[in-house]
This record gives sequence, C-alpha cells and structure tokens, in this order.
Amino acid sequence: MKILGLDSSGLVASAAVVDGDELIAEYTTNYKKTHSQTLLPMLEELRNMIELDLGTLDAIAIASGPGSFTGLRIGSATAKGLGLALDRPLVEVPTLEGLAWNLWGTDRIVCPLMDARRNQVYTAAYEFVQEGEGFRLHTLIGQSPMDIREILEKLMQLGRPVTFLGDGVPVYLNVIRGQTGLEYAIAPAGNNRQRAACIAALGAVYFAQGRTVSAADHHPEYLRTSQAEREAAGRRGHPEESL
Amino acid sequence: MKILGLDSSGLVASAAVVDGDELIAEYTTNYKKTHSQTLLPMLEELRNMIELDLGTLDAIAIASGPGSFTGLRIGSATAKGLGLALDRPLVEVPTLEGLAWNLWGTDRIVCPLMDARRNQVYTAAYEFVQEGEGFRLHTLIGQSPMDIREILEKLMQLGRPVTFLGDGVPVYLNVIRGQTGLEYAIAPAGNNRQRAACIAALGAVYFAQGRTVSAADHHPEYLRTSQAEREAAGRRGHPEESL
Repeated sequence: MKILGLDSSGLVASAAVVDGDELIAEYTTNYKKTHSQTLLPMLEELRNMIELDLGTLDAIAIASGPGSFTGLRIGSATAKGLGLALDRPLVEVPTLEGLAWNLWGTDRIVCPLMDARRNQVYTAAYEFVQEGEGFRLHTLIGQSPMDIREILEKLMQLGRPVTFLGDGVPVYLNVIRGQTGLEYAIAPAGNNRQRAACIAALGAVYFAQGRTVSAADHHPEYLRTSQAEREAAGRRGHPEESL
Repeated sequence: MKILGLDSSGLVASAAVVDGDELIAEYTTNYKKTHSQTLLPMLEELRNMIELDLGTLDAIAIASGPGSFTGLRIGSATAKGLGLALDRPLVEVPTLEGLAWNLWGTDRIVCPLMDARRNQVYTAAYEFVQEGEGFRLHTLIGQSPMDIREILEKLMQLGRPVTFLGDGVPVYLNVIRGQTGLEYAIAPAGNNRQRAACIAALGAVYFAQGRTVSAADHHPEYLRTSQAEREAAGRRGHPEESL
C-alpha cells in the first residue's frame, strides 16, 4: 500500500511517501517561505528523485486540521487536486494525531500543543495502546482550541507523565514549567513538529480501516472560524463573534 | 546551535539541519539510486530551499558506522569535505544510536537491527533515561555485529519489552516471532529507518558535550573488515579471514 502524505498545517511544509513498512521519501522544511512556495516544489522534487509514478499511489493522506487557515487550504487544495486527477481517495488525518505519532510507542500521555494565537492552543491528549506487534493511538482528550491552563488542568486530572510537542511548546514553556506537580518531558528537534511521514504512516492505518473520503468531499477541519469570518461577523453586527 | 546531519550508512540517504529545538529541514530517500546520486544533490536542494549559508553551521554530524562500506565512505567523505572547507568540527554519531533516537522517550528497550549480510546483524540495545525535561540514550549492549539469535538471547536476559527497528527487521522477522517469551513491538514506517534529523539532534547533544573530531581525524567505524579486505587476506594465505 503506497500512500502520499502532506502536511502544511503549521509553519512546517512536509511531503512523504510511505510504501508498506518503509518510508520511501520525505522532505520537510520549517522555514519562512510560504507553503505555496514550498509544498508543490518539494513534492515535485521528491517525485523526480524517487522516480515516483503518481498513478501507483493508493491514496493521499492529508493533515486535515486544525492549523493555520492558509496552510490548511493549500494542503487540502493540493491533496484534492491530486485525488481528483489520479482518481484516488483522500485520508484525513487530524493534525494533532499526526503530531502525536512522532512519539510512537511511548508509555506517556502525548500532548501536542499548536500555537493558535489569541492566547489559545490547539491541543489534545493521546496514549499509545499496544495492539499486536505495534501500537495504536487512543484519544484521551479530543483535539480542540483551549487555554493552555485548561489543558494543563485536564492533564493534572489524568495523573500520568506527559510529553509535550509542537510549536506551542516554546510559546508556553514557562506556563508548563510553572504547573507544579505535573511530570512532563519536552520532545526534541526531529520529533517535535509536523512530519508528512507521520501523516502517511497513520494515513495507511486509516486507509486499511476504510476511513477515506473522496477528493470532492474533503474539507479541512478548522475548529475555529477564521479571522476574516470573525471580522465579517463583526461588520454584520455580531461584535461578540469578532474576538 | 545549528547542526547539519548526514546519514548514508544503509539504503537510506538523508540530510537534515537542526537549529536549537527545531528541525529546519530534512530530506530522506530510501530508493535504489546510489548515495553518490542522491546525498549531495539532496543537500544542495535543501540548501537552496532554506537559503542555508553553510558558514552558519556549528558542526557536521555524521552517522559514523556501522553500515555499508560504500555508504559510510560517501557519507564520511562528504562530511570531511564540508568540515575542511568550512573549518567546522565533525560529530561522529554511531549509526545505531541515531536509529534508536527515532523512538525517543520510549520506556522499552530499543534494539536496532541492520542487516549485515553473512547471517549477521549490526545491533545494540539502548534505553532512554529521563534527564531534566528530556531523555538521554543509555547503552545496554554496545553496537557490534552479531548473529540474530545471539542478540535475541541477550535481550531475553534483560527481561524487558523490546522495540525493534531497522532494515534487519524484515529479514529476521520470523526469527524474532519464533523467540518465545520475548515481549516485543516493531516500529512503523517513518520511525524505523535512518533519519538525518536523528543524527543532527543527537549530534547537537554530543557537540554540547564537546564530543567532536576534526575533519582530518574522522574515519568511519566499520566494525568489520570489508569484503575486499577479506578477499585480499584470503589471497595472502589467510583463508580463515576470507569468511
């Protein structure tokens, strides 16, 4: 089973091809260029390097949100275009599940933190449960926007060691450090940001479970309204929605 | 601290740049092309994509072996050339430590298996020990060439759950499955092969500890004599060394 994975949900742009138990190629950048400058050129580079016939792909796995609105739209548009042109299904992998997959097999609770601005993080909590020769991801707290103190409180109630990762970690590190009684670790470079290999690998699991959507039916999961929508709502006389 | 990581020890070719707690870029391929066709072009592609000034690198971390002789030589030659030209030190990261770093933070024993041909694997056993907000890698069994049954026997004696990874896993999966009493898991695609991000991230740890060598002093750690050396020894009348 050959899966193309794409993730442009955050600052990272990443493309990867997974075939069965092997990563065939992965290209990831975390740089100030826009995703429209990086994602497709990176995919094209990969395709040439590994002489990839796109027709041999079984599905396209996409980090489906939450994340930056523009980033999610670019990733989804790319995935939809590929799915439509190749007549292949898409697999929607929730961004925070893909992030958590970085820490595959840990016995700790995994808490991804994505900076969502406006004093919020997109966050969730997962654990890995052994299943056969591997592990599956089990959701303890589903992904949602939250105040950092709210998720820390929820983690305290779970009462187990936690590993944090994601671009929200440097933003809220002092708050995490100030949470007395929480046993925590911080994931290191290389395992602490979005990776398309994780999207493709987890996408392969979901593909095998039949969890696919058509290119036409796919849409990103924003979890919040965009700034433009909030401003429009404000102009229409719903100022409380403009926050 | 900005570190370039390179790994061409096995079938995988990989280049990555880590800056502090962030992976800035990573490019990995696991394809039938030779490393001389992939490693430098991939590095050049990365350099252009992230507009990398090589002069800003603090060190070059290299997967220093074991691995394929040709792959190690290409990786080391590239790292030595860069180190010499840029006047930067090299950090030698043992290949199997880099592989193990994929499973950062697991509470299980990590056992990398690289197919070493001639019915052997290059293998080792590690555990992650918590230290501050992170984990450090602790060696339980140092890397060496071994019969698969020998390492399985040693793991049984350690008496703890094990996670296997590396290109030796598919080769010896039936032997692993036949080892009664061993609680094990198999790492999935994306976390089960060499990654330059792991070499760079672990290289940054070693760089901070002052574990560097000069470009001139670096040489790969083959752990075994090459086939050419064995054949030469055989021709010189040491047939027992030709195995």
